[in-house]
Amino acid sequence: MKLKNDKKILIVGLGLLGGSYARALTEKGFYVSAITRSDSSIEYALREGIIAAGSTKIDEKLIGEADIIVFALYPHIFKEWVKENGHLIKKGAILTDVTGVKGNIVYEIQALLPEGIEFISAHPMAGREVYGVENSTTAIFNGANYIVVPTEKNSAEAIELCSDLGWTLGFADVSVLTPERHDEMIAFLSQLTHCIAVSLMCASSDPDLTRYTGDSFRDLTRIARINENMWSELFLENREALLLQMDAFRESFDKMYASVRDRDEKEMKKMMRLSTERRALFDKKQRG
Amino acid sequence: MKLKNDKKILIVGLGLLGGSYARALTEKGFYVSAITRSDSSIEYALREGIIAAGSTKIDEKLIGEADIIVFALYPHIFKEWVKENGHLIKKGAILTDVTGVKGNIVYEIQALLPEGIEFISAHPMAGREVYGVENSTTAIFNGANYIVVPTEKNSAEAIELCSDLGWTLGFADVSVLTPERHDEMIAFLSQLTHCIAVSLMCASSDPDLTRYTGDSFRDLTRIARINENMWSELFLENREALLLQMDAFRESFDKMYASVRDRDEKEMKKMMRLSTERRALFDKKQRG
Repeated sequence: MKLKNDKKILIVGLGLLGGSYARALTEKGFYVSAITRSDSSIEYALREGIIAAGSTKIDEKLIGEADIIVFALYPHIFKEWVKENGHLIKKGAILTDVTGVKGNIVYEIQALLPEGIEFISAHPMAGREVYGVENSTTAIFNGANYIVVPTEKNSAEAIELCSDLGWTLGFADVSVLTPERHDEMIAFLSQLTHCIAVSLMCASSDPDLTRYTGDSFRDLTRIARINENMWSELFLENREALLLQMDAFRESFDKMYASVRDRDEKEMKKMMRLSTERRALFDKKQRG
Repeated sequence: MKLKNDKKILIVGLGLLGGSYARALTEKGFYVSAITRSDSSIEYALREGIIAAGSTKIDEKLIGEADIIVFALYPHIFKEWVKENGHLIKKGAILTDVTGVKGNIVYEIQALLPEGIEFISAHPMAGREVYGVENSTTAIFNGANYIVVPTEKNSAEAIELCSDLGWTLGFADVSVLTPERHDEMIAFLSQLTHCIAVSLMCASSDPDLTRYTGDSFRDLTRIARINENMWSELFLENREALLLQMDAFRESFDKMYASVRDRDEKEMKKMMRLSTERRALFDKKQRG
């Protein structure tokens, strides 16, 4: 383990994910501070003992003393923040993030940072349908995956440190992917699934449906409760990869449609068998 | 309550659902028997005290003494069974089922039955991704919906008795729908969702996906583990209603596709907001 708990960690953006990071790292004995916009979030986190210090404004001391800074806000704010405050970060510090789409942003942030400060991107694949530090919990990391997303500019040390962070937080698996491969995976596993759930929810306005619903519909649309600002940004940031995956899904759905239309029971069953076989591999694995 | 626990109830088909019925009704003090093909299912159910009597063959005594018969097998076997054994059922008995698609089968069964025996159809919207009486549990009825599906031939008494059965089993809500309206609802809420999950699972053969999956993909594809014999039959039984709902979904998905392709953030957010608003109404309500 490169990551020792004598490091000072600053969380920028204390929402559901930032708050859950703060809880986990404080529990493990790290000194954790936070900068976030809302007074009530800082007050809550201090009262709960999730953070040791916090501020709602840019705080030169908190930024300057941090060994690791975790950026847990929207991608477009991330860039602005680094442009304006990058000079306050101390030499040797490591910057990481939780952004769900990597693409250009990783390269852009790396290009923006002053010499001696390394940005190593990561994607913690954890979340809930609720928001805010008040809903944060380390339980979201149980059984979940954490992906480190380095470029050629990253050092082996930073990759190892960032992986250690994933294990320390309590993720079930930590892996390493290039930004391009990460975005391809995520377009399928995350953005496409949200596209489908939202489309399904918008496909019928029948007011009686709620009374006759079963668990299959509930499961399929759990993620249809969606933060439209965050997700429209993620969709557009990963637009090309997402369109390719939407094409692939539509092709598969059209095949199913044709098999129903043509009463092609053989094709239908073939797809169902393939689906069943593949799905079995996706069950959650717990650590340890 | 029309349904008193001095009634003798016969379950035909002791799988997950039939077994869960047997458990709930035995708990409530009913005399419950079962006919099912597998020796081990009967042995298990007797050993566990879920049923009082059982047989793997047509048993004239069990059929003849039953006040209520619950048919919990595939639709196409249902018709054959009634043709061959309808004459063994006692006058005044009520026959019900758990079939997921109603359409013609309700009218066909009603036409097949001897005078004095009434078939009142029902759809318990409960299930799990596992099969067999060994996995049966009354927990699947918690928070779930039960639909009584009468035709004009049914008596008010039978509709009430069948509703009582739903409440007795422990469902959160019991409602009444015509076969046609039931099938329209179910095409959207159940068959379409399974079509989508299977299509998504078949859309990518990338072997690395399992390592990077998150909960949104797991939730969306939970039902992609599917019994291909049962579901291909349900799809084809409800073919016309299903194709209409598949069309509606495709139209909605195409709209989302266009908004991503055209970078139409306004339309994308509009869909996401509608989706979020509607989905909030579908959360599970617990009874009491």
